[in-house]
Amino acid sequence: MTGNGADRKTALVISAHAADFVWRCGGAIALHQARGYEVTVACLSFGERGESAKLWKQEGMTLEAVKSARRNEAEAAAKALDVHDIRFFDLGDYPLEMDRDAKFRLVDLIRAVQPNFMFSHSRFDPYNTDHMYATQIALETRMIAQAWGHNPSEKVLGAPQLYLFEPHQTEQMGWRPDVFLDISEVWDKKRAAIECMQGQEHLWTYYTNVAENRGNHFRRNSGGMAGGRPARYAEGFETVFPRTVDELG
Amino acid sequence: MTGNGADRKTALVISAHAADFVWRCGGAIALHQARGYEVTVACLSFGERGESAKLWKQEGMTLEAVKSARRNEAEAAAKALDVHDIRFFDLGDYPLEMDRDAKFRLVDLIRAVQPNFMFSHSRFDPYNTDHMYATQIALETRMIAQAWGHNPSEKVLGAPQLYLFEPHQTEQMGWRPDVFLDISEVWDKKRAAIECMQGQEHLWTYYTNVAENRGNHFRRNSGGMAGGRPARYAEGFETVFPRTVDELG
Amino acid sequence: MTGNGADRKTALVISAHAADFVWRCGGAIALHQARGYEVTVACLSFGERGESAKLWKQEGMTLEAVKSARRNEAEAAAKALDVHDIRFFDLGDYPLEMDRDAKFRLVDLIRAVQPNFMFSHSRFDPYNTDHMYATQIALETRMIAQAWGHNPSEKVLGAPQLYLFEPHQTEQMGWRPDVFLDISEVWDKKRAAIECMQGQEHLWTYYTNVAENRGNHFRRNSGGMAGGRPARYAEGFETVFPRTVDELG
Amino acid sequence: MTGNGADRKTALVISAHAADFVWRCGGAIALHQARGYEVTVACLSFGERGESAKLWKQEGMTLEAVKSARRNEAEAAAKALDVHDIRFFDLGDYPLEMDRDAKFRLVDLIRAVQPNFMFSHSRFDPYNTDHMYATQIALETRMIAQAWGHNPSEKVLGAPQLYLFEPHQTEQMGWRPDVFLDISEVWDKKRAAIECMQGQEHLWTYYTNVAENRGNHFRRNSGGMAGGRPARYAEGFETVFPRTVDELG
Amino acid sequence: MTGNGADRKTALVISAHAADFVWRCGGAIALHQARGYEVTVACLSFGERGESAKLWKQEGMTLEAVKSARRNEAEAAAKALDVHDIRFFDLGDYPLEMDRDAKFRLVDLIRAVQPNFMFSHSRFDPYNTDHMYATQIALETRMIAQAWGHNPSEKVLGAPQLYLFEPHQTEQMGWRPDVFLDISEVWDKKRAAIECMQGQEHLWTYYTNVAENRGNHFRRNSGGMAGGRPARYAEGFETVFPRTVDELG
Amino acid sequence: MTGNGADRKTALVISAHAADFVWRCGGAIALHQARGYEVTVACLSFGERGESAKLWKQEGMTLEAVKSARRNEAEAAAKALDVHDIRFFDLGDYPLEMDRDAKFRLVDLIRAVQPNFMFSHSRFDPYNTDHMYATQIALETRMIAQAWGHNPSEKVLGAPQLYLFEPHQTEQMGWRPDVFLDISEVWDKKRAAIECMQGQEHLWTYYTNVAENRGNHFRRNSGGMAGGRPARYAEGFETVFPRTVDELG
Repeated sequence: MTGNGADRKTALVISAHAADFVWRCGGAIALHQARGYEVTVACLSFGERGESAKLWKQEGMTLEAVKSARRNEAEAAAKALDVHDIRFFDLGDYPLEMDRDAKFRLVDLIRAVQPNFMFSHSRFDPYNTDHMYATQIALETRMIAQAWGHNPSEKVLGAPQLYLFEPHQTEQMGWRPDVFLDISEVWDKKRAAIECMQGQEHLWTYYTNVAENRGNHFRRNSGGMAGGRPARYAEGFETVFPRTVDELG
Repeated sequence: MTGNGADRKTALVISAHAADFVWRCGGAIALHQARGYEVTVACLSFGERGESAKLWKQEGMTLEAVKSARRNEAEAAAKALDVHDIRFFDLGDYPLEMDRDAKFRLVDLIRAVQPNFMFSHSRFDPYNTDHMYATQIALETRMIAQAWGHNPSEKVLGAPQLYLFEPHQTEQMGWRPDVFLDISEVWDKKRAAIECMQGQEHLWTYYTNVAENRGNHFRRNSGGMAGGRPARYAEGFETVFPRTVDELG
Repeated sequence: MTGNGADRKTALVISAHAADFVWRCGGAIALHQARGYEVTVACLSFGERGESAKLWKQEGMTLEAVKSARRNEAEAAAKALDVHDIRFFDLGDYPLEMDRDAKFRLVDLIRAVQPNFMFSHSRFDPYNTDHMYATQIALETRMIAQAWGHNPSEKVLGAPQLYLFEPHQTEQMGWRPDVFLDISEVWDKKRAAIECMQGQEHLWTYYTNVAENRGNHFRRNSGGMAGGRPARYAEGFETVFPRTVDELG
Repeated sequence: MTGNGADRKTALVISAHAADFVWRCGGAIALHQARGYEVTVACLSFGERGESAKLWKQEGMTLEAVKSARRNEAEAAAKALDVHDIRFFDLGDYPLEMDRDAKFRLVDLIRAVQPNFMFSHSRFDPYNTDHMYATQIALETRMIAQAWGHNPSEKVLGAPQLYLFEPHQTEQMGWRPDVFLDISEVWDKKRAAIECMQGQEHLWTYYTNVAENRGNHFRRNSGGMAGGRPARYAEGFETVFPRTVDELG
Repeated sequence: MTGNGADRKTALVISAHAADFVWRCGGAIALHQARGYEVTVACLSFGERGESAKLWKQEGMTLEAVKSARRNEAEAAAKALDVHDIRFFDLGDYPLEMDRDAKFRLVDLIRAVQPNFMFSHSRFDPYNTDHMYATQIALETRMIAQAWGHNPSEKVLGAPQLYLFEPHQTEQMGWRPDVFLDISEVWDKKRAAIECMQGQEHLWTYYTNVAENRGNHFRRNSGGMAGGRPARYAEGFETVFPRTVDELG
Repeated sequence: MTGNGADRKTALVISAHAADFVWRCGGAIALHQARGYEVTVACLSFGERGESAKLWKQEGMTLEAVKSARRNEAEAAAKALDVHDIRFFDLGDYPLEMDRDAKFRLVDLIRAVQPNFMFSHSRFDPYNTDHMYATQIALETRMIAQAWGHNPSEKVLGAPQLYLFEPHQTEQMGWRPDVFLDISEVWDKKRAAIECMQGQEHLWTYYTNVAENRGNHFRRNSGGMAGGRPARYAEGFETVFPRTVDELG
C-alpha cells in the first residue's frame, strides 16, 4: 500500500463510460467510503454514442441531450454510492481517444488524488475497444504520474495497485479475479445506484445475479462448507501488480 | 483466511526434496514462526538420488548414507528456521511417486495441521518433473482433505491458500509472483539455514542474490522512489486461489 | 459432425460426479432429447466422499447410504431431463482414479453409443482435480475408441466434438465458452432436475443465475440491441476440436 | 447469425493489403457467393510499398505505377472469385495508418453492407504490424458501427462474427483455427485468383499446399478414417466471438 | 551443447509410435547422420492398435501381424534415413503406458547414447494423448538420467536440448517452431523413408507439402526477398530449454 | 543470420531510455564489439522525465540539464562498452511517442546499419509503457525497413533476429529468456559502464546479482554438474523470430 499523506485514504476509479463504475465497482466504492476512504471517479466519456441505445431510440434525440441525461444518471448513482468526487472528462466514445493533453489532465487528477489504489477495465475486450484502451491509458498515466520530471514541483505518485474490475462476459476478456470483496453491507447502496441507470434497465438483474454469484465465490474461497464466511454479495477484481506484505494469510 | 480453531495459527510446506523448503520459503517459515504461527514442513523425499551430486561423488557412498546426510542437513536447517515440525515421507525421488496410501498419509498431516495456508512448487518445471508433481499432489490432497466423506469423524479442511514458492529459473517455469514478503528481520536465520546445505554450496550466493533482488522488487511495488518501504530481503510467491477480503489496499 | 448410422442421433456426457451433468449441461441434455437425440450420461463416481457434505453431517451416515442417496438423486434428475440412459461407473471420488480396465469399460460405452458429440469438464480445475482428470480421461478414451486395433470387430468411433461444460468459478479454470445454446424451451426441466439435488440446495439459485446471465450473453452475441434473439436461459460450452462446415454463419 | 434485412445475405472482408483476401479467404468468398451471399472486399491499402518487391525491382518504377498494377491484379482476382464489390481505401502501407476519418469511412461501409459475418487478420503478427493493426481496426469499427449514436439515422450493426483468416507462419502469430470450411467445389476459382497475383508467384504453390493440407484437417475433424468427409481443399478460420446456436452438432 | 566424450556426436529420438520419427524428424535424422552424428531412435510402441487402420481392415489380421508389419516398415524407413540404431520398446499404444521399469529401460538407453540433443512430441495433443505422454516421459527420464544417485557407477547425463518435432495440426497442439532446419540435401532420403510407410499412404503428400512450406518459412526467416537462403525443404522444431552461446547470430 | 555486405558484422540496440542498453545488454554489446561486430545504440529518449529521480531531487534542476547529464552518462557508458556508435533521438519520455517522421528516422538508421541482429525491450511492461511501445516500434520499423517501396533506391533490410533483453521484474512482463550469452570475458566492461550511471546507483548491485545468477543459468543449461561450462556472468534474451540453421546443437 502506498501513502498519500498522514491521514487521508483515497482511491481513484477510471471509467471509460459514465456507467461502468456502477456495475463494476459500485460496491467497492460504497464500502471504502464507509471505511473512511475518499473515492474519486473519473468518467472519460458519457458513453453517449455507444451505450445509450434506449435514449437514441427516442424521437429527436441529440448528442447533447444524451450526454446530459447520462451525466445526470451518473451523478445520481455517484450520490447513491457516497462518491467523494466525480469528474467528467467528456472525451467522446466509440471510439474513446486521448491526446497528450487529455492524458496530462488525467495525470493531474491522479496526482491530486494520490490514490492508495486505482480501478480500471480488463486488459482485453474484443467487444468494446474503449474498455481496453482505458486500461492502457490507466497504466500510461500512472507511469507519468510517477515521473519526477513531470511538473517537478508536484508530489509524485507512489505505486498504487491497479484493480481491474469485472467486465461483461468475463471469459471472453481473459479476465481472472484474484480477489473477492465482501460488499454485503453496502449492497443496498449498489442496487440503488444501479437503479439510477434508467437507460440500461436490462442490466439490473444481470448485475444482481453477478453480485450474488460472486458472493458464492467469496464463501467458497474463505472456507466453503467448513466455515466460509457468509458473504451474500461480492465483487471480484484482478490485480495487475504484486502485493507487498508483512505476513501471509 | 481460514480458521483451524480458536487460538492456533498454522502453515504447511510441501517440499518435494529435503532442501527445497530452505531456498524457496525459508524466510516465510522463520517470519511466521516469529509471528506466532506453527509451521510444519513435509519433505516428500530426501532428494537422495537427484539432488545430492556432491555426496555421490564420494567414494563408496550408499543410498542410505545419502538419505541420512540429507536428513541431517534438513533437520539442522529446520532448526535454524525455528520450524515447528518436520516430517520425512521418504517416498523416493527422480522420480517421486505417490500411491493412494501415500496421498492419504499426506491428507492425514494436512488435517492434523489444519493450515491457514500452504506452500508448494511451481505448476510447471521441465527440468524437474518431481517439482510439478508435488504441486499436483498438493492440490489433490487439499481436495481430499476437504471431503466430508474422507474419514468422516475428522475435522475437514477449510480453503487455505496455496502459495507457490520460487523455483529455479522462474521464467522457464511460467511462475509469476503476485506477492512479495519482507523477510529482512529473519534474513540471518534464512542464511544460517542455507549454510546447513553443505552439499549445495554452489547455491548459497545464488539464493542470497535472489533475496536481495526480491527486496528491490518489494521496494518498487510498495512505492518505489516515492516512499517504498526499505525492505532489504524478500521472498516472492504466486497464489493459486483468489483472496477474500473486507477491504482493498 | 460424425455419423453413427442411418437414423440415430446420440450424445454422451462424461460426468466426474453424480450431479455434474445436471448443473453443467442439463439444458443441453433436455433440449437434444427434445430434438430427437438419445443422450447417455456416464457418472464416473457418485461424488459420495467429496460432494455430499450435507449427507455426511447426518448422524450415523455410511458410504453406502451416501452413494445410494446420490444415485437416487441423479436418477431423478436424469428422469426430469428425459435422459435416454444413465450409467454409474462407481469408481470412487476424491480422488477419482481409473485403471486400464475402467478406461476400457468407458471405451465400450463410447463405442456402443457412437456419440455425435460428447461433454466433459474443463481442462483445468485447481479446486477439484477429479474434474480435470475426467477431461483427460475423456480425451484418452475417445482416442482409444477410434483405434481400429482395439476390439477389432467393433465399429470404431469417428471424430465427435468434445464440449467442455461450465465449471464453477469459470475464470479460475481458464475455461472460455465459444458457443452458447438457447435452453429457454427446456428451462423448466432443468430447474426440476436441479431441485432433485436435495443435498446441494445452496447451488439452486446460483445455477439459475448462471442460466439467466448466459441468456444475456446469448442475446448479445446474436445481435444485441440490434435484433438479438430473446433467449431467456442459455448454457455455454468450450469446444476442444475445430468444426468442419459447408458454410460460415 | 445476425440479420441485415429480409432477403440479403452478406459478408465483408477487411484486407490490409490488396492480395491478402486472395490467399487467406478466397475460397470462402467464392463459396459464399455461390451460396447466394454478396461478399464485399475492403482493401485498406494496395501493399504498394511492402508487398510488391517484384515490381520495385523493375527499372524506373513509381509508387503510382505499383498501386495501379496491384489494383489491376486485385480486381482480376476479385472477378475470378465472383466478388460482389471491392473497395480500395488507398490508406498506404508499411505502415498502414487510419485516422478518425478513415475509420468512419470503414464504418460507413460496414453499415452499408450489414454483414452476416466479417473477415480480418490474426490478432498478432511480429513480421507484419499492418496485419494486426487491421484486426484492431476491424474490432474498433465493428464497435462504432454498433453505436446507436453514430449517425443516428442509420441502421446499426448487429453482432456479426469476425473470422480471422490464415496468416503466413500461423504458429508465430498465435493463430488457431477453430473452423474448417470445405472449399473443394470452388478450388478452381481460388487457384485462378491466386494466379492473378503475378507479383507473388513464389506463393502459388505455397497456398495450394496449404489448401490441400487444410483439406486433410477437414477430413480428420469430420470423422477421419471412420467416415470423414472427403474434402480435398479447405480453409481454416479462428473465431473471435462465441456462436449462438439452437442445437449442438 | 553437451558433451558425451571426446569424439562422438549423438542424438536420440523418442517416438511414441513406430512411424512418428519419419514424418516429424526424418530430415533431421538423415542430415545429422550425414554430419557425423550417430542418431538412435526409440520407438515406444509400434502404433499397432491406433495407427494401423489400413492393416486392420484386412481380413484375419492379428495384433502380432500388425506389430510385425509396422516393425518392418519402421526398420526400412530407418535404413533409408541411415539411422544408427533403432530400438523397439513394445510398450503398447492407445494408450501408451510406462511403469517404473519401462522408464528405467529408457533411462538406460539415454545414458548409453549420451545424446547431444533429443527429440520428442509436442507438449499437448488433444487428439492423441500418447503423444503428449511421450513428451512427459522424455522430460522425466531426462531428469532421472541426470541423477547422480541413479545407478551411481554410470556416467550421468548432461543437459541436452529437447527438440519438440512437428505434430499433426500444429495450431491445435499449441506448438510453435523456433528453429527451422534446412533438409534440402537429404530430402530424397526423407521421401524414401516416407514411402516405406505403406499403411499411411494418405500422408505422403501431406508431409511433402509440409516440408516444402517449411522451406518457405526457412527462406523468410533467413532474409526473405533480400537474400534469404534458397532452402527447398525444411523441418521445424520447438525447443524446451534455453540455448547457451558465445555469440548471438 | 542475415548479411549486410561482404565483410561487416553489425548489430543495433533500440533503447527506450538512455540507460536501458547498459543494464540489459551491455555485456552483449562489449562481447560482440570484441568479436568484430560494430554495435550501434539508438536511445529514443534520455529518460529525462521518468528515470532521473535523483537529478530532479536537486535544487533548481531543469529539463535541459537533466537531458545533458543523462546524455553524458550514456556516452560514458557507451565508451566503456566500446560501442561503435550511439544516436540520441531525443523524442521525450513518459510517455515516449513517435510520429511517422520519427519512425522513418529510425528506419533510416536501421538501413544504414543493416544489422545482423537487433535488440529491444520485452513485449509487455505494465510498469513502463514506454518499454513495450519501443518494442512495438522496433517491429514496425523493421518491417518498413524491409519494404522495397520505401526509399526505393536504398538497400532493403533482410530478416534480422530481434532479441528482447531482460526487463526489470521479468515475470511481471511475461518475458522468458531462450538464450543465455556468456559475458564473463567482458564483465569488467559492463560493470564499468554500470558505474557510469551515477543517477541510478541503487541498481548497480541489483544488475550485478542478475549477471551472476544468469551465469548460474548458463551453467545449468550447458550441462550442469555433469560438465556445464563455468560461465561466471551471463545475459539472457528472448527471441522473437525462429532461427534458421544447418545443424542442431
